[in-house]
Amino acid sequence: MYKDSSNIEIDKVLEKAEKAFHVYKTCSLKQRANFMRAIAFAITALGKELLKTAAQETNLPIARLETERARTIFQLNSYADAVERGHWLEARIDTAIADKTPPKPDLRKMLVPLGPVVVFGASNFPFAYSTAGGDTACAFAAGCPVIVKAHPAHPKTSTLVAKAIWDAASECKMPDGIFAHLYGAGVEVGEYLAKHPFVKAIGFTGSYSGGKALFDWANQRKIPIPVFAEMGSINPVFLLPRKLETDYLHTAQLLAASITQSMGQFCTNPGLVIARQSEALDLYVAELINQLKEIQPAKMLHEGIARNFNENLKKAKAQKGVKLLYETKGEITVGGGPITITQTNAQTFLSNQKLHEEIFGPYSLLVICQNEDEMLKVARCLEGQLTATLMASSEDLKNHGKLMHAIQEVCGRFILNQVPTGVEVCLSMQHGGPFPSCTDSRFTAVGADGIKRFARPVAFQNWDNVFLPDELKDENPLNIWRTVNDELTRGAMM
Amino acid sequence: MYKDSSNIEIDKVLEKAEKAFHVYKTCSLKQRANFMRAIAFAITALGKELLKTAAQETNLPIARLETERARTIFQLNSYADAVERGHWLEARIDTAIADKTPPKPDLRKMLVPLGPVVVFGASNFPFAYSTAGGDTACAFAAGCPVIVKAHPAHPKTSTLVAKAIWDAASECKMPDGIFAHLYGAGVEVGEYLAKHPFVKAIGFTGSYSGGKALFDWANQRKIPIPVFAEMGSINPVFLLPRKLETDYLHTAQLLAASITQSMGQFCTNPGLVIARQSEALDLYVAELINQLKEIQPAKMLHEGIARNFNENLKKAKAQKGVKLLYETKGEITVGGGPITITQTNAQTFLSNQKLHEEIFGPYSLLVICQNEDEMLKVARCLEGQLTATLMASSEDLKNHGKLMHAIQEVCGRFILNQVPTGVEVCLSMQHGGPFPSCTDSRFTAVGADGIKRFARPVAFQNWDNVFLPDELKDENPLNIWRTVNDELTRGAMM
Repeated sequence: MYKDSSNIEIDKVLEKAEKAFHVYKTCSLKQRANFMRAIAFAITALGKELLKTAAQETNLPIARLETERARTIFQLNSYADAVERGHWLEARIDTAIADKTPPKPDLRKMLVPLGPVVVFGASNFPFAYSTAGGDTACAFAAGCPVIVKAHPAHPKTSTLVAKAIWDAASECKMPDGIFAHLYGAGVEVGEYLAKHPFVKAIGFTGSYSGGKALFDWANQRKIPIPVFAEMGSINPVFLLPRKLETDYLHTAQLLAASITQSMGQFCTNPGLVIARQSEALDLYVAELINQLKEIQPAKMLHEGIARNFNENLKKAKAQKGVKLLYETKGEITVGGGPITITQTNAQTFLSNQKLHEEIFGPYSLLVICQNEDEMLKVARCLEGQLTATLMASSEDLKNHGKLMHAIQEVCGRFILNQVPTGVEVCLSMQHGGPFPSCTDSRFTAVGADGIKRFARPVAFQNWDNVFLPDELKDENPLNIWRTVNDELTRGAMM
Repeated sequence: MYKDSSNIEIDKVLEKAEKAFHVYKTCSLKQRANFMRAIAFAITALGKELLKTAAQETNLPIARLETERARTIFQLNSYADAVERGHWLEARIDTAIADKTPPKPDLRKMLVPLGPVVVFGASNFPFAYSTAGGDTACAFAAGCPVIVKAHPAHPKTSTLVAKAIWDAASECKMPDGIFAHLYGAGVEVGEYLAKHPFVKAIGFTGSYSGGKALFDWANQRKIPIPVFAEMGSINPVFLLPRKLETDYLHTAQLLAASITQSMGQFCTNPGLVIARQSEALDLYVAELINQLKEIQPAKMLHEGIARNFNENLKKAKAQKGVKLLYETKGEITVGGGPITITQTNAQTFLSNQKLHEEIFGPYSLLVICQNEDEMLKVARCLEGQLTATLMASSEDLKNHGKLMHAIQEVCGRFILNQVPTGVEVCLSMQHGGPFPSCTDSRFTAVGADGIKRFARPVAFQNWDNVFLPDELKDENPLNIWRTVNDELTRGAMM
């Protein structure tokens, strides 16, 4: 039904996007924000049809999809507020000093949009990280047209959301070409897009292989472009001794829920738990298993994901030194897989890189260490992670300074006594850690700071006030915060 | 005399840098700033020996070197102030909301250092973009150890400055390995460094071929790292009709000085001037030539640069449709080359990519357009540039909206009625434009925003106040600006 877009179609779409860029970039912050709010409104207006379609395509329950839709709308509206607030513009002004040697010129700087952005959405978030998801919202916020390649696992949902974006664009009199929606089941469309001269940046959420391919294509272009790919992560959770002793029950409950939430299909799923051997750990494990027994596995997002999950489970269980701790007994839903916990020791984990790989689904590996030194070694050998979590008492923290520093080195978000699943949308969120969790740890995929992925600074030297962008004019007509001669101020310049 | 560093030496240096990183990153902002100020002081203490050595190695006059030394010291001191001011940390706090569904956790975010940074300095700035130059200052500011590969054109100067850095490190009790100094005349040392697992980022100033090689090596690593390479630029200057009519004399004077300053050996040298045919243009050209006749070419930085300059000149003059407008008559200093201006028309320029390439030295090409449309075409066909300049009256600006937008698209700094040479060190400076002038237009090599090249955000979720970094503590002990619940404030939290 959804034929792959042809290269001729893509060329046409990108020519339009390029033209649209030159109009859209001149729209005011208010116009951009209103466009984003109109998209949020149009998505709401799709009503139950959107939820039903997504449920059919993703096997996700309606309640979860309702939450995700609310989050998507919140993202669009809150990033729209951020656009108008203008902090993200990093407006800076340094005024001239004529009697300096040599004279200091008047210099003013702000972020401007990069150009057309291609967004590759995620299968596990049909709304919040897809067609009108975080990347699209950030790109529109920055002033960039967006070209979405619909995820082949939910093309109908994507098409509905695309229609909402076009409706909003038309209502807000946005230039033709501000948004485009393409299909592609294989890699060809993605590759053609990544190499297209009119594409100026890429946002991606998905697998390591997909993100890395885009990163390589983008860097091998004659004119390389930035790729922000949010890829895999096993989100290590370190259980410290005192915390386990005093709170093993609650810790086990939290982790059982986090590992299995949405059938473990979150990029922040805790796929690795590290702890020292102790009686409290035994009690934790017993409680974890008790909790998991109560949870019935559901159908996964699509057949491919379920197949991969089951194959990866088989491989993981077959690794030398890996012991099965728990696996759902009895019948498994077609297209699902068993909730599974395995166990190994630190030495085995340290020597087998296979055990460091993400298994996307309700799976977690428990690594048991003999002592603090082994825990530190495990922390230091980890690849880059979106998140890392410490379950620790104050006493634990005081006793594990080195471990805290080592864990912070590998992650983008460092959590204490909560679980990594659940990514709050706010300015302080960091969703993006060192490679391979992301292609560039200096940016985030969640929160209004994500806008900066798609913008670059331009300095204006010696311009007359009247010809400067409003953001940089003496009188500060937009009433935004700016750094004037190294001081933050919202005031006008005298 | 300066033997290439061996791989064994490099391994040792990087092991030490890695260890130093874990200590240095825990130093306070004040400690980092004081270290940077101590470097500035130690460079001053090198006195005349430094100036004499640099003059011998670079052929630059003492007066110019004095200015550059002052600039280097200003960079170190002003970035040290910026470190303590803390704007660059992008500290954000979002407080918990327990009764939200799901509950909103406490989240706090700030920038943390990436790890050891390798700096490749420039031949044309032996102080300000070399051993203790802008990249080194930014990396130390961010909290990263620095490994400098001395530029093979001025190893003695580099060694003197390295000693100053070590003196400062020792005085400030910095960890062993905070700074290292390596030699390498060929590409091998650079390649080994770019591929080394302990290296976490690269700063480079120099040629396209050098920067692009580093960029490719860094991206092909198992774990890619960011490279900020500031490469070539021809810095187009657009002369608009009304401005030429009313001010051709002053414009010609400004450009004659800018083209020939330091024998044209600046990355912001105006290598391309675009104007419409007119009587005023003829007068401009006549005055430009008058001015250039007064300027005697000097010795260039080193033999290789002089040889390249003379070869590139020969090739440029041999291009079809290119006419020689001016060339220094008479004897040329050994190791120098003639000040040269050529001329062509827009059609020739548009159809010959060779004419878009940088010729490093006192050279500029004048492109004569028939009409505004041709000017616009020239603007749109340009590669990414560090700077672009408009010489224009208010009337010109009102009449050339499209041209203004097109020029802004290709540059990092957009100058009105001044010349591109002279890069002011301040927060509003942008030194970094679209590729190929730089590898990532989202960052700058000059100004305190350059610190952000070497840092990444980490979010702390649900941490007790006492265990948070000082930058994020409730009471704001460092008195820095932070964004708390979307509002900028310097206050403590109640």
